[in-house]
Amino acid sequence: MYRTHTCGELRLENIGTPVTLAGWVQTVRKFGSITFVDLRDRYGITQLLFGEALNPQLDDQPLGREFVIQVEGTVTERSNKNKNIPTGDVEITVSKFTILNKAQTPPFTIQDDTDGGDELRMKYRYLDLRRNIVRQNLELRYRVNRAARNFLDSKGFMDIETPFLIKSTPEGARDFVVPSRMNPNEFYALPQSPQTFKQLLMVSGYDRYYQIVKCFRDEDLRADRQPEFTQIDCEMSFVEQEDILNNFEEMLKYIFKEIKGIEFKDAFPRMTYDHAMEFYGNDKPDIRFEMKLVNMNDTVKGNGFKVFDEAELVVAICAKGCAEYTRKQLDELTEWVKRPQIGMTGLIYARYGADGSIKSSVDKFFDESKLKGWAEKTGAQPGDLILVLAGKEERTRKAMSELRLEMGERLGLRNKDVYAPLWVVDFPLFEYDEEDKRWVAKHHPFTSPKPEQISWMDDLSKYGNIKANAYDIVLNGTEVGGGSIRIFQRDLQEKMFAALGMDEEEFNHKFGFLLGAFEYGAPPHGGMAWGFDRLCALLGGSESIRDFIAFPKNNSGRDVMLDAPSAIDQKQLDELQIALK
Amino acid sequence: MYRTHTCGELRLENIGTPVTLAGWVQTVRKFGSITFVDLRDRYGITQLLFGEALNPQLDDQPLGREFVIQVEGTVTERSNKNKNIPTGDVEITVSKFTILNKAQTPPFTIQDDTDGGDELRMKYRYLDLRRNIVRQNLELRYRVNRAARNFLDSKGFMDIETPFLIKSTPEGARDFVVPSRMNPNEFYALPQSPQTFKQLLMVSGYDRYYQIVKCFRDEDLRADRQPEFTQIDCEMSFVEQEDILNNFEEMLKYIFKEIKGIEFKDAFPRMTYDHAMEFYGNDKPDIRFEMKLVNMNDTVKGNGFKVFDEAELVVAICAKGCAEYTRKQLDELTEWVKRPQIGMTGLIYARYGADGSIKSSVDKFFDESKLKGWAEKTGAQPGDLILVLAGKEERTRKAMSELRLEMGERLGLRNKDVYAPLWVVDFPLFEYDEEDKRWVAKHHPFTSPKPEQISWMDDLSKYGNIKANAYDIVLNGTEVGGGSIRIFQRDLQEKMFAALGMDEEEFNHKFGFLLGAFEYGAPPHGGMAWGFDRLCALLGGSESIRDFIAFPKNNSGRDVMLDAPSAIDQKQLDELQIALK
Repeated sequence: MYRTHTCGELRLENIGTPVTLAGWVQTVRKFGSITFVDLRDRYGITQLLFGEALNPQLDDQPLGREFVIQVEGTVTERSNKNKNIPTGDVEITVSKFTILNKAQTPPFTIQDDTDGGDELRMKYRYLDLRRNIVRQNLELRYRVNRAARNFLDSKGFMDIETPFLIKSTPEGARDFVVPSRMNPNEFYALPQSPQTFKQLLMVSGYDRYYQIVKCFRDEDLRADRQPEFTQIDCEMSFVEQEDILNNFEEMLKYIFKEIKGIEFKDAFPRMTYDHAMEFYGNDKPDIRFEMKLVNMNDTVKGNGFKVFDEAELVVAICAKGCAEYTRKQLDELTEWVKRPQIGMTGLIYARYGADGSIKSSVDKFFDESKLKGWAEKTGAQPGDLILVLAGKEERTRKAMSELRLEMGERLGLRNKDVYAPLWVVDFPLFEYDEEDKRWVAKHHPFTSPKPEQISWMDDLSKYGNIKANAYDIVLNGTEVGGGSIRIFQRDLQEKMFAALGMDEEEFNHKFGFLLGAFEYGAPPHGGMAWGFDRLCALLGGSESIRDFIAFPKNNSGRDVMLDAPSAIDQKQLDELQIALK
Repeated sequence: MYRTHTCGELRLENIGTPVTLAGWVQTVRKFGSITFVDLRDRYGITQLLFGEALNPQLDDQPLGREFVIQVEGTVTERSNKNKNIPTGDVEITVSKFTILNKAQTPPFTIQDDTDGGDELRMKYRYLDLRRNIVRQNLELRYRVNRAARNFLDSKGFMDIETPFLIKSTPEGARDFVVPSRMNPNEFYALPQSPQTFKQLLMVSGYDRYYQIVKCFRDEDLRADRQPEFTQIDCEMSFVEQEDILNNFEEMLKYIFKEIKGIEFKDAFPRMTYDHAMEFYGNDKPDIRFEMKLVNMNDTVKGNGFKVFDEAELVVAICAKGCAEYTRKQLDELTEWVKRPQIGMTGLIYARYGADGSIKSSVDKFFDESKLKGWAEKTGAQPGDLILVLAGKEERTRKAMSELRLEMGERLGLRNKDVYAPLWVVDFPLFEYDEEDKRWVAKHHPFTSPKPEQISWMDDLSKYGNIKANAYDIVLNGTEVGGGSIRIFQRDLQEKMFAALGMDEEEFNHKFGFLLGAFEYGAPPHGGMAWGFDRLCALLGGSESIRDFIAFPKNNSGRDVMLDAPSAIDQKQLDELQIALK
């Protein structure tokens, strides 16, 4: 037996007990003839006491950092107690030790505040994973996993595994494909989500399904995307949107209570997509703070200021208490909105002084009384700063949405320990893809339109107005989940495919099995999928999902530790009957 | 709200309650002006009562099998109670009903004893999944999943997700590969198991890991194989074989208790690989019955019977109470061993009559006293039948192993409700691959040899004798799990790779990350992987894992419902920079 106890469990009441411990050497400190070693494992740290007389062997076998050792000894009381760790009252007086494995000096320090850069830590991810902060992230992930399972189990959801080798039906994101050796020239695809399978399970009568499951998207990776990611995927039968929102609101509350000890007493607020777009400029508002967008078109147009007069949208926010921003700060904000990611040509501002005076960067066109109108419109009070952007509607709204978040950040209104969940509902069914010049599904092609708007699907001019029974759950400005009530009738599903530009041959080829299933008694159903990586990151107070994935890939989709992907043997290519180009 | 109750929960105490139910029409029976409908959902069946006066609508909207309907009504007491179902005391007197979705007549009956053939049921798997028997299998699978998780959670194992897009390191089975668009001419591989990742997690100090995870092998499919399958994958640090066996024996006992209500009081028996091969002819003995193989070489050779004299192995079993087998039965057994799958040229037998006489099919060479010697050797008593095979050692042992199982089957000794778990230990480290003319790892290249036999790795003539710290758990003649104590030292791992014929360049290319990890303080560790599909099948009393997988593939690796794999667009091929041959 390698150990009688872990490094996290010995206490004062164990004094006098002979024990065997095993773990990693965290630190070695010599004081004359005595050597202290902190021995570490997943459960904690226990101090070991070596004496020259007792352990003469130590001279020949010096212990280095990260060595794996086993010690026998007796639990003794520490004279110099460490109140910061649960095992800090005791130490082990070592009678015998064995080096189980030596260790080279790690290429970076195994500390929260490590000296290792990103690339180096990813190459030696097995060492990075030793750092407390990373281990805590993975422990949190494990706890969230368990909490979600406990909740779903208790509500009668069944965990049912769906296949990974499925059919390629590219729609939206690109599929990863897998050549089949047994079926030459044919390919499987890895699932972007188990969407159609969970719908089939509803048709099969399983009523409540869930799965915590890997999904795959072959997309160019932005900062916080991974080619493989994990969803908490759920589906329910005989439900309306209200049932789903209630059920999953309860789940998120349960997770918050279990993981963070936070209790949400009130129902989560709900907001329509249109409201979110108008007042926050995006469909995932961070509602930890107000600072809503104010449409200024009616207030500012027709005063001879071309920038406003020619703009599709003039939009403002009121930054509370910022009237004293210096010229330098305002110039800096102006540069900020001019960055290519934001893409505006300038920033207009009006300072509402504490003395009641208002001065703007466009005084030439707007006298003080007109600026008072701005203040009235934006709700600005003496001491506030009004920031205004003008230009093409979509870009300007987006820019102001970003500026609002930036100002929220600067004003300390985005505390990561404050959690503000929000349901966004009534998403549009379609959105227009400017690049492909066609209407695409905003959510996915299985999302149902509002029943009273189904007839609008016959009128292309109304496509943009049709709302879906679709909803997202947003946490602190990040979408952590979304779903919809699904189409469950063959004729409506066909209508939807047709609206998306598929002809009968195409939709039967891609989704014939689902259309078929709808003919044999499909119940009304709907569900949600949660971005599990992102949920964990938010609960862990981090921006990056990568910190919550044991073996993540970099921005080029590479695992730098494994050096994957990599070339494969010609023999493998031959067996698959494919060639490189 | 679609329903106030499920179809499984109403009882006598609900009489008088107004309810809304939704579900599938299981049966429709008309008696004059009254119509009875059995309404079904996942939770049960509730009888609905329609009257012509109350529901005139029924004439215009007849209900068909598998229609999805919603009814409102009142719970009433049934006059003709059905004691076979928990809801059999009540029925719903329907006041209003809505057809939510119609259904075509299913292509096969939705019954335990369906009239649908395999291929048809797989094409319409969403209907097949409605059958009780299939749903019960998936429910059992879900319960086994939960039981395993509960046990492992309680023992401090952490569920940690490992990646699916990894590096191809073909060794043993073929990898499925995934072309990378972002890294042209390079491929990911889908994991055959998370083996190296779980070992890295041990190096990282995670101490106890588990995952219930999909694995992939691109092998030609035998009857009971799937290209994607599920493992309960576990690893532990600072353990010896004994710790692992004890831990997972406790887990299997826990699962049996939870799922089957069966308590195993005694420790599972253990048997060495060598013993299993000698006395059962294979490494996964079905020990529900004895009928051990008896080596007859010393007993029968040198009597002028060429078949025995020239054989490498003469081996017998004693079939209790079968002396009265008819000539026809014996001829049939002879034909059975001559089948190509068994491959023997004949079967020799000796009947030990109840009167004490012995007669054999080789009386010419063996008189009664010699045959008594056979009886003594095999432990045969009057009334027993001795069956003998002779030939090349490996084939003959294998054939006798099969014949033993066949006789066990015929004698009713393989009751699927009796469970006989067994640990097989001390597997060989290597086995010789006759086809490739080289030594390969019996388990995998990460398995450690018995420490005292490490030096034999320098002597090719001793390869066959080296035993590994490897073990399998066998249930009723089926391997349901296996594992080993791993190598955790770089030099020994390199020695192992070299023994398997890899040169330094090859093993550094394939497994450099693991060898590297071993240099930074790798702890002793070991683990197990369980064949989750097979475990569920055995617990469900079935031979076939396919019955326990929601969406299985057929023997050609095809999903006939999806029609996958399938051709992909030229655009996809172009983006991946690959061509078909």
